[in-house]
Amino acid sequence: MFDHKSEHIDEHMALLQANIDDMNPEYTSYVMDRLFEAGANDVYWIPIIMKRGRPGMMLNVLVAEERIPDMEAIIFAETTTLGLRYLKAAVHRLGREFAKVETSWGPVTVKLGYHQGQLVQMAPEFKECEAIAKRHGVPLKQVYEEVRRGFADKGDHDGGSQP
Amino acid sequence: MFDHKSEHIDEHMALLQANIDDMNPEYTSYVMDRLFEAGANDVYWIPIIMKRGRPGMMLNVLVAEERIPDMEAIIFAETTTLGLRYLKAAVHRLGREFAKVETSWGPVTVKLGYHQGQLVQMAPEFKECEAIAKRHGVPLKQVYEEVRRGFADKGDHDGGSQP
Amino acid sequence: MFDHKSEHIDEHMALLQANIDDMNPEYTSYVMDRLFEAGANDVYWIPIIMKRGRPGMMLNVLVAEERIPDMEAIIFAETTTLGLRYLKAAVHRLGREFAKVETSWGPVTVKLGYHQGQLVQMAPEFKECEAIAKRHGVPLKQVYEEVRRGFADKGDHDGGSQP
Amino acid sequence: MFDHKSEHIDEHMALLQANIDDMNPEYTSYVMDRLFEAGANDVYWIPIIMKRGRPGMMLNVLVAEERIPDMEAIIFAETTTLGLRYLKAAVHRLGREFAKVETSWGPVTVKLGYHQGQLVQMAPEFKECEAIAKRHGVPLKQVYEEVRRGFADKGDHDGGSQP
Amino acid sequence: MFDHKSEHIDEHMALLQANIDDMNPEYTSYVMDRLFEAGANDVYWIPIIMKRGRPGMMLNVLVAEERIPDMEAIIFAETTTLGLRYLKAAVHRLGREFAKVETSWGPVTVKLGYHQGQLVQMAPEFKECEAIAKRHGVPLKQVYEEVRRGFADKGDHDGGSQP
Amino acid sequence: MFDHKSEHIDEHMALLQANIDDMNPEYTSYVMDRLFEAGANDVYWIPIIMKRGRPGMMLNVLVAEERIPDMEAIIFAETTTLGLRYLKAAVHRLGREFAKVETSWGPVTVKLGYHQGQLVQMAPEFKECEAIAKRHGVPLKQVYEEVRRGFADKGDHDGGSQP
Repeated sequence: MFDHKSEHIDEHMALLQANIDDMNPEYTSYVMDRLFEAGANDVYWIPIIMKRGRPGMMLNVLVAEERIPDMEAIIFAETTTLGLRYLKAAVHRLGREFAKVETSWGPVTVKLGYHQGQLVQMAPEFKECEAIAKRHGVPLKQVYEEVRRGFADKGDHDGGSQP
Repeated sequence: MFDHKSEHIDEHMALLQANIDDMNPEYTSYVMDRLFEAGANDVYWIPIIMKRGRPGMMLNVLVAEERIPDMEAIIFAETTTLGLRYLKAAVHRLGREFAKVETSWGPVTVKLGYHQGQLVQMAPEFKECEAIAKRHGVPLKQVYEEVRRGFADKGDHDGGSQP
Repeated sequence: MFDHKSEHIDEHMALLQANIDDMNPEYTSYVMDRLFEAGANDVYWIPIIMKRGRPGMMLNVLVAEERIPDMEAIIFAETTTLGLRYLKAAVHRLGREFAKVETSWGPVTVKLGYHQGQLVQMAPEFKECEAIAKRHGVPLKQVYEEVRRGFADKGDHDGGSQP
Repeated sequence: MFDHKSEHIDEHMALLQANIDDMNPEYTSYVMDRLFEAGANDVYWIPIIMKRGRPGMMLNVLVAEERIPDMEAIIFAETTTLGLRYLKAAVHRLGREFAKVETSWGPVTVKLGYHQGQLVQMAPEFKECEAIAKRHGVPLKQVYEEVRRGFADKGDHDGGSQP
Repeated sequence: MFDHKSEHIDEHMALLQANIDDMNPEYTSYVMDRLFEAGANDVYWIPIIMKRGRPGMMLNVLVAEERIPDMEAIIFAETTTLGLRYLKAAVHRLGREFAKVETSWGPVTVKLGYHQGQLVQMAPEFKECEAIAKRHGVPLKQVYEEVRRGFADKGDHDGGSQP
Repeated sequence: MFDHKSEHIDEHMALLQANIDDMNPEYTSYVMDRLFEAGANDVYWIPIIMKRGRPGMMLNVLVAEERIPDMEAIIFAETTTLGLRYLKAAVHRLGREFAKVETSWGPVTVKLGYHQGQLVQMAPEFKECEAIAKRHGVPLKQVYEEVRRGFADKGDHDGGSQP
């Protein structure tokens, strides 16, 4: 798999929003899973206060405009909403690359983010760190620390020591 | 009253937003009431963290573009904000219909939602269920359950057993 | 410094949003400070629930479109995000004016807001009230009260007793 | 009705808490109403994040210990919880008194709070202010302002100008 | 496995609380998992606002007093906190029983809750409903509905029609 | 200044809580400042939903029991509450020590936390890192990273590589 992607802006994105105040919260994770599987770029919930002071949840789905119908089919089937909003959005994505960092428990993937050719982000892969923490019985934060240190020690990333 | 409405998209909607960090929270329900009375399609509050780490509230009003001035008059009069934002929005509304469901406490209205001709939502009217719960001294959740069951038993709604 | 500004609408504003679920929350105040210094009109955080049920924070920056690149440089350098969204926004700002109100502890600045020529907002300057509260050992709420009363007693502001 | 109450501490109070992640949020206001009617001193909800990252609501009921069984009957009947917690609490209540303040729209009740004989709180009654705002078509915040001013002008309350 | 448990009160429970404002939120699910595996009765997070207006998370762990040391070892190892609080708590648990409900997709387990011998709660098992929704391509809410209906139709549960 | 403190449990602590739904949120930071100055061990706010669905804030103050009266004087003077709750609490504090870590911008203080003699926490001092970030124009997250790395490279801290 070739994962490198250049920094770019996606112009034709939509942010779908639905305010929900009558749904069993147990459904939230399942709705998210289905939307991600169907191609959502991001899915998240915002706690809100609705009519009559009801604690509601606002479902947010960031998705390419041409995929709106797929998202809607899932949202109307799986949630209790009677409608939803579209907001137009553009998305700026950093250049992305994956690298491997050696640790005492084996290699760990890190995701790198580049802005105008400069390395600005370095994020260890959660799932791999979690697996190491479980397998070796070490604190997850210690795994993250060692990955960060291993990456920094590896040296010249595009000439910069950051991040 | 004829309540049937076909599924459709309202293109010219606006989402008005005002971040408020210096208002007595007692005013929130009154502001909502006034905005709904003046034609807002939806009003809700989002808890946010503002400058100096202040806990603020973001007022959100979804409304047809031509009603923006009416909303603004209320927002500026009733809240403490010195400005507000407009975001353009489109709203997709399901086809809506009201039906009656028989229960042991009498008929209850339910709101039905249709997506592409298929029934996808069924919501008992809160106010009616609440009135029954109070009058008959039964738990509100039991009233909801019986309405849902009564609706399901009624049978073929557009040929589907869902929802 | 001449502070009077007429009521107006800024059409070419952007709302930048980044969902962040892997950042030390200690950085939030610093990020805000840097964005405000670089010309952001507003910066605020919304608590959200992200993938895997993670408690995240959504950074929001309201800014003139031509300043987007400056904001991005700060956001990518100071947060851990790998991307961000742009939403187009327009901002309606009330006419603004500053006035001085006499109190028993000296004059205090208040910010006034006008909608269509009518005074609708009056906000004591937090920093000045806080300084008085500290210096004189009086409750901050008492300082605010006296400023509000002093303003009201001053009389005819544009012919209205409000707010 | 004689409303004066001296400042005191209630020692035998309980804080009941139930974490709820599978309930229709429409029930929240009804649950509150029933608990208040049955003698709860306070009822409030805290948004929380539960198992599997689910957005839940924690119901909190502050009540005299001897009323715990009444509260439980309502909580188990009206919510979906399978259990609840008790925390022991003591409650410090200020001395309370009600007074009337004259405004241009008629008298308004205010609630006063005394700590060690000193007036420290003054709160206009929301319901009365709201009724005036509606009847007279004036902003609610203006009603509050005038009540506060009227109270301050009335003069010597226990010898202090505060609050 | 014998799952029936009578209604009872556990007196010697503790609520551990730690306010955390400098931890990567990616760790939250892992911390929860480890605490549940080590015997926590409940684990949840409350969004809070801490010193300097920082958005923090309060970790809450409900656990039997004798297990406090196990919880602490995990909390100190896996989070970034320098301390934690103990509050004494008692926990009232409903009588619990599991039952099977037939649906068109096969049997589903439901958890029943009894208060003073009366059935007050009925909760379908999330994991089983989710598995059916995935396998059969039906909306999760439809699975829940059918389980509820199947349970209600099954008839006399301890002589009560509720819930 | 001698900063070493051994791990210990403070038994006689109180958690004071006040639910506030009618206060200008601008006062929150000032209230916190005053409480910390007067000896509060911790102060934080929890967003809650109160009577009539009002968005309120719960003030929380963790403090030694003998300081309750000082806290109350401030809370009643500076907020709008008419009462507050006391919950008994014990606080477990890790052993604490401060150390200096060398960085390319000079030494930075780190706070260390020990559980049963084992180093479990290492936290760079925010104020010092912030000052470096400002003075040298480097991202704050880079300062934190370098401090963490410098600490890890310094070697054997109590024989452990963690955290």
